[in-house]
Amino acid sequence: MLSDVANKADFRFEILYQSKRSRARVGRIITPHGVIETPNFVAVGTNGSLKTLHNHDHEELDIQLMFCNTYHLMVQPGTQLIKESGGLHTFIQRQQPIITDSGGFQVFSLAYGNVAKELKGQGGKKHPPSKMKVTEEGVVFRSYRDGTKIFLSPETSVQAQKDLGADIIIPLDELLPFHVDEATLKASFARTHRWELRSLAEHLKARQNQAMFAVIHGGTDLALRQQSCQLLTKEAFDGFAIGGSLGRDHQELHDTVGGTTSHLPTEKPIHLLGIGDVTSINHCIPFGIDTFDSSYPSKVARHGMILTAKGPLKITRTEHARERIPLEHDCPCPTCKHYTRAYLHHLFKAKEPSAASLATWHNIRFMTRWMSKIRTEILCGLL
Amino acid sequence: MLSDVANKADFRFEILYQSKRSRARVGRIITPHGVIETPNFVAVGTNGSLKTLHNHDHEELDIQLMFCNTYHLMVQPGTQLIKESGGLHTFIQRQQPIITDSGGFQVFSLAYGNVAKELKGQGGKKHPPSKMKVTEEGVVFRSYRDGTKIFLSPETSVQAQKDLGADIIIPLDELLPFHVDEATLKASFARTHRWELRSLAEHLKARQNQAMFAVIHGGTDLALRQQSCQLLTKEAFDGFAIGGSLGRDHQELHDTVGGTTSHLPTEKPIHLLGIGDVTSINHCIPFGIDTFDSSYPSKVARHGMILTAKGPLKITRTEHARERIPLEHDCPCPTCKHYTRAYLHHLFKAKEPSAASLATWHNIRFMTRWMSKIRTEILCGLL
Repeated sequence: MLSDVANKADFRFEILYQSKRSRARVGRIITPHGVIETPNFVAVGTNGSLKTLHNHDHEELDIQLMFCNTYHLMVQPGTQLIKESGGLHTFIQRQQPIITDSGGFQVFSLAYGNVAKELKGQGGKKHPPSKMKVTEEGVVFRSYRDGTKIFLSPETSVQAQKDLGADIIIPLDELLPFHVDEATLKASFARTHRWELRSLAEHLKARQNQAMFAVIHGGTDLALRQQSCQLLTKEAFDGFAIGGSLGRDHQELHDTVGGTTSHLPTEKPIHLLGIGDVTSINHCIPFGIDTFDSSYPSKVARHGMILTAKGPLKITRTEHARERIPLEHDCPCPTCKHYTRAYLHHLFKAKEPSAASLATWHNIRFMTRWMSKIRTEILCGLL
Repeated sequence: MLSDVANKADFRFEILYQSKRSRARVGRIITPHGVIETPNFVAVGTNGSLKTLHNHDHEELDIQLMFCNTYHLMVQPGTQLIKESGGLHTFIQRQQPIITDSGGFQVFSLAYGNVAKELKGQGGKKHPPSKMKVTEEGVVFRSYRDGTKIFLSPETSVQAQKDLGADIIIPLDELLPFHVDEATLKASFARTHRWELRSLAEHLKARQNQAMFAVIHGGTDLALRQQSCQLLTKEAFDGFAIGGSLGRDHQELHDTVGGTTSHLPTEKPIHLLGIGDVTSINHCIPFGIDTFDSSYPSKVARHGMILTAKGPLKITRTEHARERIPLEHDCPCPTCKHYTRAYLHHLFKAKEPSAASLATWHNIRFMTRWMSKIRTEILCGLL
């Protein structure tokens, strides 16, 4: 049904309703692989698989946009192999829209040790955080799988993303460690924007029906954020993603996002990178954020943290051992349809792998339902 | 459809076709929770979950009988809790037939270190192989989860299985380590049979629509096997399970099974405990084995070993990295319907949890299809 609207069309963003109370809006992003109703949650399937779930269940989960990581796919199985298989949609058998990142975030955060812990569980042989070298040209790093040298530049990142063929792609940017001096920060900020423009130029050589979202930088410095917006909104980007450091707490996130979207045009979609907890989403909707990606709902699910409208629930706690009720009464997910809290508690206690998949299924479905509720609330004039 | 035939009836075994070439037969076991077409494969779901899969998918997987382990369910979540939840079928939400064992196999093999490795991954706190004490009354052992003492006797085992409410239950028996002297062996053999009769007596006090299968012992000693058959076939058991040591190779398995089923009545179903590889199944069908349980197909799946009609296939091998074909062309499972070998290879290489569940789904579906093929071959006079 949604794909009928798209009709294999190029990228388009339509605002169906603009709130009178805030910058919140209800819209839809139309891509060659279908429509994304906005605001929406973007599920993260790093390696082309949402952990513990199957891509053929995405329609039932209502995952309208999936986020895959170019860095991981470059390292395994390689973007060339995916291209030869007919692209990422075909390779992973997902018919609906996909967004890929540039690979930069993983390269830099792995080098700086940020997400190293997260990545540790995924590689084959373990390598220490990769040594890397950043020049104007790009960044050279070593694969966490086998230590081979990989060169990532704006041009190679875009080429990799062309091989993958996602509906939305992202230009290469630089991520800095937390504590750097002013001069390093300024130099990086300027280079990031040069890289983004080079990425856009490379992309526009052969658009291939893909859209490119610029990444707004500037950390929590609102003057820099404004400058980033001014630089990037002049260019032919199809949308914007808010990246870089978003602050340490809800207040800083609030200030940073609010101080950024006010400098962005209302007619293009705005994505918030790496944020996906309900509180932050609720805070950012009034600023006009259209999509949020995060592995948070699936990561906590694997540890028995169940998202519900009444707040999170730790299913491994003894109080749930005898509860013969579903995780959430009105949830249409298979976990809630078929099983009790007591059974899920038991599966976690018995360390059964099905515990993680049943919990993930619920949490992802919770997020897609939550976003649907938010869309309704905007339409009803509540947000 | 199958459940219509059962119509909540008590246990019944019907032979639909007796081979003229061998003792192989096609039949059906009718239980309160539905019909099991025989010969058939029995999937093992130790803790009430077939590893990586979901019970609501069992109908699509065609799992007509599921094997759950009383020992594990006693330790977590406890059979009393399951009874209060309405029994095992309700607790785990499986509508189709279930068989439980006595708990003896795990207690003894854990103590003797046999399946300790397999169990290691499952407990919470790790305990060394449990100290246990065997008397005429029963066996005392310590829970691998928290070290608490548990007493297992023929009566408590049957009571636990009554709490669970499986369609088919098994009397308590003793499993010996590989190297014991003749006197110990004889004493154990005699005690095992006394325990089985005590189990039967306890069971018959309140049948609760459950069937009980005796366990034939005697190891690879055909005279002892015959003696075991003579002792147990006189009693009111509903079927027989061939247990104990079955030998070290296919020839010994062949001799032991053949030398046992020839002493069993043809009108009752015969189960072969713990055997589920295709070669052994093919060998044992002509001896009149009706059901086989094994965790082998799901265990090897988690390591990337894919069962096919042309023999096993190691999906992690580089030769499959670019194969844009399903695991098996004519397989109706979701894995084969949706994904390529290349994608499954990638998921294993990337250590994605979905690799194990997609492979398990295929292997279990392969087994249930294989058994269906065997039934057809018997009906066609080929076996």
